[in-house]
Amino acid sequence: MNKQELVKLINQKRSFLCVGLDPDVQKLPKHLLNSDDPVFEFNKQIIDATKEFAVAYKPNLAFYECLGIKGMQSFEKTIRYLNKFPGEFFTIADAKRGDIGNTSKMYARSFFGNEENALNFDAVTVAPYMGEDSVKPFLEYPNKWVILLALTSNKGANDFQFFNNNGKRLFEQVLERSQQWANSENMMYVVGATQAKMLADIRKIVPDHFLLVPGVGAQGGSLQEVVKYGMNKEIGLLINASRSILYASANEDFAVKAADEAKVMRDEMSALMK
Amino acid sequence: MNKQELVKLINQKRSFLCVGLDPDVQKLPKHLLNSDDPVFEFNKQIIDATKEFAVAYKPNLAFYECLGIKGMQSFEKTIRYLNKFPGEFFTIADAKRGDIGNTSKMYARSFFGNEENALNFDAVTVAPYMGEDSVKPFLEYPNKWVILLALTSNKGANDFQFFNNNGKRLFEQVLERSQQWANSENMMYVVGATQAKMLADIRKIVPDHFLLVPGVGAQGGSLQEVVKYGMNKEIGLLINASRSILYASANEDFAVKAADEAKVMRDEMSALMK
Repeated sequence: MNKQELVKLINQKRSFLCVGLDPDVQKLPKHLLNSDDPVFEFNKQIIDATKEFAVAYKPNLAFYECLGIKGMQSFEKTIRYLNKFPGEFFTIADAKRGDIGNTSKMYARSFFGNEENALNFDAVTVAPYMGEDSVKPFLEYPNKWVILLALTSNKGANDFQFFNNNGKRLFEQVLERSQQWANSENMMYVVGATQAKMLADIRKIVPDHFLLVPGVGAQGGSLQEVVKYGMNKEIGLLINASRSILYASANEDFAVKAADEAKVMRDEMSALMK
Repeated sequence: MNKQELVKLINQKRSFLCVGLDPDVQKLPKHLLNSDDPVFEFNKQIIDATKEFAVAYKPNLAFYECLGIKGMQSFEKTIRYLNKFPGEFFTIADAKRGDIGNTSKMYARSFFGNEENALNFDAVTVAPYMGEDSVKPFLEYPNKWVILLALTSNKGANDFQFFNNNGKRLFEQVLERSQQWANSENMMYVVGATQAKMLADIRKIVPDHFLLVPGVGAQGGSLQEVVKYGMNKEIGLLINASRSILYASANEDFAVKAADEAKVMRDEMSALMK
């Protein structure tokens, strides 16, 4: 999906909500545990219930890898299910990968290739520490995106991301340097909602890029603040919510409650888009 | 495996060689391609042929993930095979993971847990960008190790790792700050052999830690230089070689040639240990 299509989708749906598909087996509704593949069944019902309100889905690999091969099968089934709705939403593999060039090429092939095994995601999250050659292989696929970690939503963000060279902080260096490799048509940045006020500084460096913003809801970030400091003329935001939607209810009505929660967020977003 | 055991193993084998199990399907010997699982068959034969000369094995996840579920099955079979030789070598999942605390906990469980699905590696490589809470969940398992990226062997290392705060470079900040979370009994650092002279600076900050050193061989780093600047009183080095061993021959004699190559490196290491 290219940028124009994404912007159009956001305007059509009046939403810039991304649903994080992070199924924690210990939190799944009990009645699903007897199905063949509870994780996929959960995801499928969440997708069906929320797809009117969401423009993106973002499974985080950790939640699948920790279940071994069975988890990876649930993961593959989830992206293949999402791919049955071409153009209806943007798909993000939240993998935070990054390795030397030759090796990143392998990761890029996993997520973006269109061979039999490949998953054909629209975007993958990438860690910047290893620099240009760790990121570039992901940029070689047309209409595919890198979402580079810039300023994350967690406490540990303070350890290195604010490391300061004559007033320029590391996350700013990441934003600047990475623009030599890509542009706002194929790169986005992760900026945590818990850092909403920093968005004003960030927009000075990347006025046109989309930002993927986790941390609204369970992690304490505010939607209004993110929009105030981060929205640009093409919206330029994908706001992720995971736990607040996935676990709105732990009972048989989980999908209905998830839809309710997603609708509340969509309505709030729609109002903020005026 | 704890530090004492690792040091003992190195002294017994007179080797600090780590073999990178990075099987590239396009480079596998043709005669293996008809077997049920060519990737595992290749790994198994490489392990059997080199285990006299190596103290560690390091599969890089990218090479398996790019083959989908089948690749992940080869990966699991590989670590389960390695686990059949307890105490004979140190095992490293080269995954370069790292995410917010709750999510890193899932990754840690995948690689270190001892439940049915878990892989029971000795160590996992972790990217530092997201800071303390992204690293700590991996440190909660006794006798398990984090190998944190510090100064990598690739060209992109120059993009951010030398970012400089009043003379202190980011990789030095990573070395310093991370010592608040762990010590030389449960943390190692990745330092590329292509940066051998930097090892002198690095040893000032982490005199007692083990360093995992990729980049000798195909990437151009020199074993002698690494030893000169990086060895400490407990050796303190694991030197990785992948392509030079795995693809020493593309024919039916690949395992014999791999053993020859590993033996050459072991002999060189043994001489340097005097």
